[in-house]
Amino acid sequence: MKTSVDLHTYMQQQRDTVEEALRSVFPLEWSIPATLREAMNYSLLAGGKRLRPIFVLAAAEAVSGRADWAERAIHFACAVEMIHTYSLIHDDLPAMDNDDYRRGRLTNHKVYGEAMGILAGDGLLTHAFNVATQALKRGVPADRVLSVVEELSRFGGVSGMVGGQVDDMLGEQGLTTLEELEHIHLHKTSDLVTFALRAGGHSAEADSKQIEALSLFGRNVGLAFQIQDDILDLVGTEEKLGKPVKSDERQEKVTYPYLLGLDESRKRVATLTKEANETLIQAHFANPDRLIEIAEDLLNRDH
Amino acid sequence: MKTSVDLHTYMQQQRDTVEEALRSVFPLEWSIPATLREAMNYSLLAGGKRLRPIFVLAAAEAVSGRADWAERAIHFACAVEMIHTYSLIHDDLPAMDNDDYRRGRLTNHKVYGEAMGILAGDGLLTHAFNVATQALKRGVPADRVLSVVEELSRFGGVSGMVGGQVDDMLGEQGLTTLEELEHIHLHKTSDLVTFALRAGGHSAEADSKQIEALSLFGRNVGLAFQIQDDILDLVGTEEKLGKPVKSDERQEKVTYPYLLGLDESRKRVATLTKEANETLIQAHFANPDRLIEIAEDLLNRDH
Repeated sequence: MKTSVDLHTYMQQQRDTVEEALRSVFPLEWSIPATLREAMNYSLLAGGKRLRPIFVLAAAEAVSGRADWAERAIHFACAVEMIHTYSLIHDDLPAMDNDDYRRGRLTNHKVYGEAMGILAGDGLLTHAFNVATQALKRGVPADRVLSVVEELSRFGGVSGMVGGQVDDMLGEQGLTTLEELEHIHLHKTSDLVTFALRAGGHSAEADSKQIEALSLFGRNVGLAFQIQDDILDLVGTEEKLGKPVKSDERQEKVTYPYLLGLDESRKRVATLTKEANETLIQAHFANPDRLIEIAEDLLNRDH
Repeated sequence: MKTSVDLHTYMQQQRDTVEEALRSVFPLEWSIPATLREAMNYSLLAGGKRLRPIFVLAAAEAVSGRADWAERAIHFACAVEMIHTYSLIHDDLPAMDNDDYRRGRLTNHKVYGEAMGILAGDGLLTHAFNVATQALKRGVPADRVLSVVEELSRFGGVSGMVGGQVDDMLGEQGLTTLEELEHIHLHKTSDLVTFALRAGGHSAEADSKQIEALSLFGRNVGLAFQIQDDILDLVGTEEKLGKPVKSDERQEKVTYPYLLGLDESRKRVATLTKEANETLIQAHFANPDRLIEIAEDLLNRDH
């Protein structure tokens, strides 16, 4: 099946849809302290690639073959971006990475203070689950919404993203092997990408084989994404990335290029992308083309 | 209907049930970094009254009139205690209240460091939602489990407990009126107690009128509990409370006794408890006696 618009236009359209939905995740009629609302929106509406939510929408489309079914998945798309955003806020805190800038702007705690940074993160994390439950209103069956809630708390939680964060922190000093690095990346980055694809699948009532295929695609694309991040930190430009380059080197972080060299790292990104796409092709989705296009585009990105 | 064992025995039995369930909320077969698991359990298994989870179980019993229906609610009971525990860990952080001791032991970040304290809190918060979804396995219908997930994220979130925390923090300097203080207490404490009662009700498939009655009972008992806390901080003994007394005075915190005087504060606790119990009596539950006994016991507590 041919996709109707070019990838660039598609990504921009989906990003616009996500941005619009994110602007109203905190209902105006809810009594939320004004500074808390402002602090959460400061980070949530700071732009970015919106890769995870776009994967949610694209997975819904891939399974159903219907572009309009992305609407059913919009709450899951917002939820995953909220989880991603809270993790960045907490990551940047002085007790963690102690970063002053993120996406070219001051980090949350630099603007609102450390206590508010902690609470804004807690608020985004908690409210992500509220937003996920709203999918019921778009016709996603209750058992599927529950599966998504369970998976969000698993892939985003102690055996997933939070666990990866802990491993990364504890490993910073003594990390040596490729297996350990891959383990960290799988949990720190891939798990939430995997969740995004599964959630999109659930919204389109994918069967268990399809969910598994989306899962494997997400694992490999997520890992490729993280290796590419390591590569770009080394060879990218500050202008394109919107953040200082060579920060890994300065912080003496163990990365894929450090362990494997640049060439081998690039090969690994290509192989993972190829494997990801083959998984999709074999799974006989109604329309996997867009997901495949996105994965290939990520392979060639320079920011 | 008469209750079968005396309140003290009942509370101890329920506490034992909750303690046992809490010990296995993190499945052994899950890959969780050992230090993270230890840090989360350090705070989760540190004892305490377990009031919120007991309210979950007692509400299930009140609605169904069956003691064995408390089992259906056990996952919700664990979830609310996990949310309560994460909030204490984050509260104690240097950037927040900067407390070194909690329940007579070193606070989480004093033992595991600040970064781990933040992540242990994030882990408990995220995993609480996972545990809540497990109620499906005990026969709670999917739509009720979803209601509980939605309510946990609402009462525990930005318009509930997290919001109350922010208001408390921002209000510490300029707080003056009784209305403002009540607003903070309602969100900081009552909201999670209210959630506990509603969750117990949902597990027993309570109708909407019964849920509303449990909600109002929770609101008033939660508020009474917080005022009693303020009173005990002023007149209690360090030995019974397990924490230093008169900390509010030292920190120049505005409390109910500060605004209303001790006598008037005590009257308010009694009135709120009476109102809470009348709500239950009017709602024609199968067996409201235990909830009423608990509320009255809280009124007379000295720790």
